[in-house]
Amino acid sequence: MRADWARRSGWSVAWEIKRWLKCWLAGTPGRLGSALRVRLYGFGSRGPDVFIAEGFWAEYPDRIRFGNSVGINRGCFINAGGGVTIDDWVLIGPGVTIYSQSHDLNGDPSLPLALRDDVRKPVHIARGAWLAANVTILPGVTVGQNAVVAAGAVVSRDVPARTVAAGVPAVAVRSLEESGSTVTT
Amino acid sequence: MRADWARRSGWSVAWEIKRWLKCWLAGTPGRLGSALRVRLYGFGSRGPDVFIAEGFWAEYPDRIRFGNSVGINRGCFINAGGGVTIDDWVLIGPGVTIYSQSHDLNGDPSLPLALRDDVRKPVHIARGAWLAANVTILPGVTVGQNAVVAAGAVVSRDVPARTVAAGVPAVAVRSLEESGSTVTT
Amino acid sequence: MRADWARRSGWSVAWEIKRWLKCWLAGTPGRLGSALRVRLYGFGSRGPDVFIAEGFWAEYPDRIRFGNSVGINRGCFINAGGGVTIDDWVLIGPGVTIYSQSHDLNGDPSLPLALRDDVRKPVHIARGAWLAANVTILPGVTVGQNAVVAAGAVVSRDVPARTVAAGVPAVAVRSLEESGSTVTT
Repeated sequence: MRADWARRSGWSVAWEIKRWLKCWLAGTPGRLGSALRVRLYGFGSRGPDVFIAEGFWAEYPDRIRFGNSVGINRGCFINAGGGVTIDDWVLIGPGVTIYSQSHDLNGDPSLPLALRDDVRKPVHIARGAWLAANVTILPGVTVGQNAVVAAGAVVSRDVPARTVAAGVPAVAVRSLEESGSTVTT
Repeated sequence: MRADWARRSGWSVAWEIKRWLKCWLAGTPGRLGSALRVRLYGFGSRGPDVFIAEGFWAEYPDRIRFGNSVGINRGCFINAGGGVTIDDWVLIGPGVTIYSQSHDLNGDPSLPLALRDDVRKPVHIARGAWLAANVTILPGVTVGQNAVVAAGAVVSRDVPARTVAAGVPAVAVRSLEESGSTVTT
Repeated sequence: MRADWARRSGWSVAWEIKRWLKCWLAGTPGRLGSALRVRLYGFGSRGPDVFIAEGFWAEYPDRIRFGNSVGINRGCFINAGGGVTIDDWVLIGPGVTIYSQSHDLNGDPSLPLALRDDVRKPVHIARGAWLAANVTILPGVTVGQNAVVAAGAVVSRDVPARTVAAGVPAVAVRSLEESGSTVTT
């Protein structure tokens, strides 16, 4: 008989095999590892130049859209249940977590959170933004063009373009010089 | 001759074998990996339905007591030197750290922290609580029934039941609707 | 043809081999793993008694100088582009990140961050300091002798000696008793 978590999470042999594959992908080093992650993970779409370092893990990878020239450092985690879009030239530091779904705090209080439906909201990291080390992005957030999220910040609201946000929760701490032309390279 | 850290930490061949086993357990994927972690880690007690995802690590696992229907996401770390109790229906997100011991800041100041005794205080995560991604729980803390700790929070004081706590250090930011019956499923 | 990230990051076969070696070192358990990490990583200098737990990763390890009796817990990440000095008796908890380089926020705004030069500033963790779990240290920071950085803190400014700093960003929250003799063991 199946354990209850297995029933709740829709466990199957295919689930198990996928999980072993994802662990193997996470552990394969270097450029070869990145090439395998990029090609085998089954992302929704991606540009030709995406680098994903070791330790990467994604749930619902088919709902992730990567632009071009995206770099993701070691140990990042994306839950794309609500959809995650990462535009061109985005930089993602080590240990970054992006969540686009959550448990339903407003649901039936007689049910434990694990038995309620998920709440899903899309995340968008716009062109040229940088999420520094150990940042956490919460569901529904847009990080604007060329914005910077400082290390360790937890982002629960949108970050405007060309703004540095920091803290838990993240707030704007500085504006970045506007260029005559926005990022064009 | 032994390195000093080895003497301080009581290194032995049994220590080394245990550490290799824990690394192997941490790296085994999927439902099989969870089943092995649950059965081989030597927890103090546990209900029949506990899921522990990959990357899990525990110190003093014999001092951890798990209830039933507990789910632990990837990459969590529990130091149970002071005892850690996790009740039924608790949800633990990825990258959560639970510490029940600390170095002694008030000890003999002529000794480095590494040579002072540990200070140990039990941690209790009550029924139905949710620790979201990257939360850190500090020694002595109780997280109340159906409480929610927001992503990235560092919890240094108790969180009351049916309360959402957030920030570093975590403070209460919202109360959750009380149900006529508390979680009963 | 090389992918653009490969050109930008100076990819070569030697780069790839080094990366595979670092992954293998990160995954080797226990005292044996620590001994291999300490000896094979190519650190700038180190005392005879350094313990480095599993999951460790360093960029520019030749720019890291370790004192003696240093202990580093699981899953730590050091980017030593700007130089990182860690003195005797420093304790580093699990999941700690130390960065001594950053992207240049004040550079040519018509270039994406990934194409600008890095900004490098040295980091110094002084004798007897403790960085608790999941701390992030930013470029240019000095953590003073016997100082304590609380779990989850993000340190963007110097922490004075014998001071407990906490929060995001970290601020001083308490002074520690001064000993007649500073740490002498």
